[in-house]
Amino acid sequence: MPEGTTQPFVTHVLKAEKIVFSEYDHHIQRRLSAMKGQYLDQAAYQALLAREDALLYEVYEMRRPEVPGELLFGLSIVHPGIVGQEYFMTKGHFHTVLETAEVYYCLRGEGFMVMETPEGECKVEALRLDSVLYVPPRWAHRSVNTSSDTDLVTFFVYPGHSGHDYGSIEQQGFRKLILARDGRPEIVDNPRWHSPEKRKK
Amino acid sequence: MPEGTTQPFVTHVLKAEKIVFSEYDHHIQRRLSAMKGQYLDQAAYQALLAREDALLYEVYEMRRPEVPGELLFGLSIVHPGIVGQEYFMTKGHFHTVLETAEVYYCLRGEGFMVMETPEGECKVEALRLDSVLYVPPRWAHRSVNTSSDTDLVTFFVYPGHSGHDYGSIEQQGFRKLILARDGRPEIVDNPRWHSPEKRKK
Repeated sequence: MPEGTTQPFVTHVLKAEKIVFSEYDHHIQRRLSAMKGQYLDQAAYQALLAREDALLYEVYEMRRPEVPGELLFGLSIVHPGIVGQEYFMTKGHFHTVLETAEVYYCLRGEGFMVMETPEGECKVEALRLDSVLYVPPRWAHRSVNTSSDTDLVTFFVYPGHSGHDYGSIEQQGFRKLILARDGRPEIVDNPRWHSPEKRKK
Repeated sequence: MPEGTTQPFVTHVLKAEKIVFSEYDHHIQRRLSAMKGQYLDQAAYQALLAREDALLYEVYEMRRPEVPGELLFGLSIVHPGIVGQEYFMTKGHFHTVLETAEVYYCLRGEGFMVMETPEGECKVEALRLDSVLYVPPRWAHRSVNTSSDTDLVTFFVYPGHSGHDYGSIEQQGFRKLILARDGRPEIVDNPRWHSPEKRKK
């Protein structure tokens, strides 16, 4: 469907071995090489990257005008995998317009949404089939797939004028990490996290 | 969860014989008596109402502050049934702030979304399991359940500041009706529809 259409339209979520939209405007594929500096175990990251620039996650998006009152929506698909002890995850971002929310509906798999405000308040919520997660305005968010063999698939909706700020998280990281310990996910403090106080200096 | 919270939260879509949220702020139940004047066959409407004030549809809503940047979301459940030749349906509404969109994800059942602009442009889209429907800003919308035995269940998201204008549709109706003809749904012109031109007079 043409970007900027004012006509209603339908797409279908096709649930086979992969989950995809029947129609979409945009398909983003994020590989390991796009996550430089984001994983705690840098040696494991480099070793894995030397072997293969693995596909970490994909996004199918329906583009709409990026203005207030409009809604952007799509599918996020985080593949299973691990870098050192850390699960495959999305880059994570704030919205450029901080005062914008996001809603996620989990369609397959299991994992966590790691969230954080600019002031350093943090929260981690579990996702499983048919979980609906509300991310309030001001909260950065990152999806983490903790399954060993299944995609973490979410359907997301956010306001048209939100925008994406990836830079802040690239620099400061999230306060919490999800690590595999004895084969089970554990929420731990990120030793490399930059607190808002440190960041000011 | 308290209205106006700034904390992330999760609710779960529980899919048993009925589909419900595990947690919600608001549960709306709309009965036949709330649809006075909306059905084409007024005699059938009155006869049915005399027998029972049937439950037509329910909405489970998560309340959020009604401001731009926020998102309101919930479940809409239209039960199966018929009034004369016309299927059970929602009241249908414009958003008070016309320039706001809405996104629907169909979780169960089958039916149609009947849509219309203030200028009288109209469109009808079919809904079935895993259909994702985008309703652009300016389009009034009504869900119609065409199944004889299954709820039509949709998950919806719309901007916090949208508001609901039910009055316009109550007065003018929708341009298109979905009628059962030989047991199958048919899209027909609404003979009682008030065109924008007529409405001006």
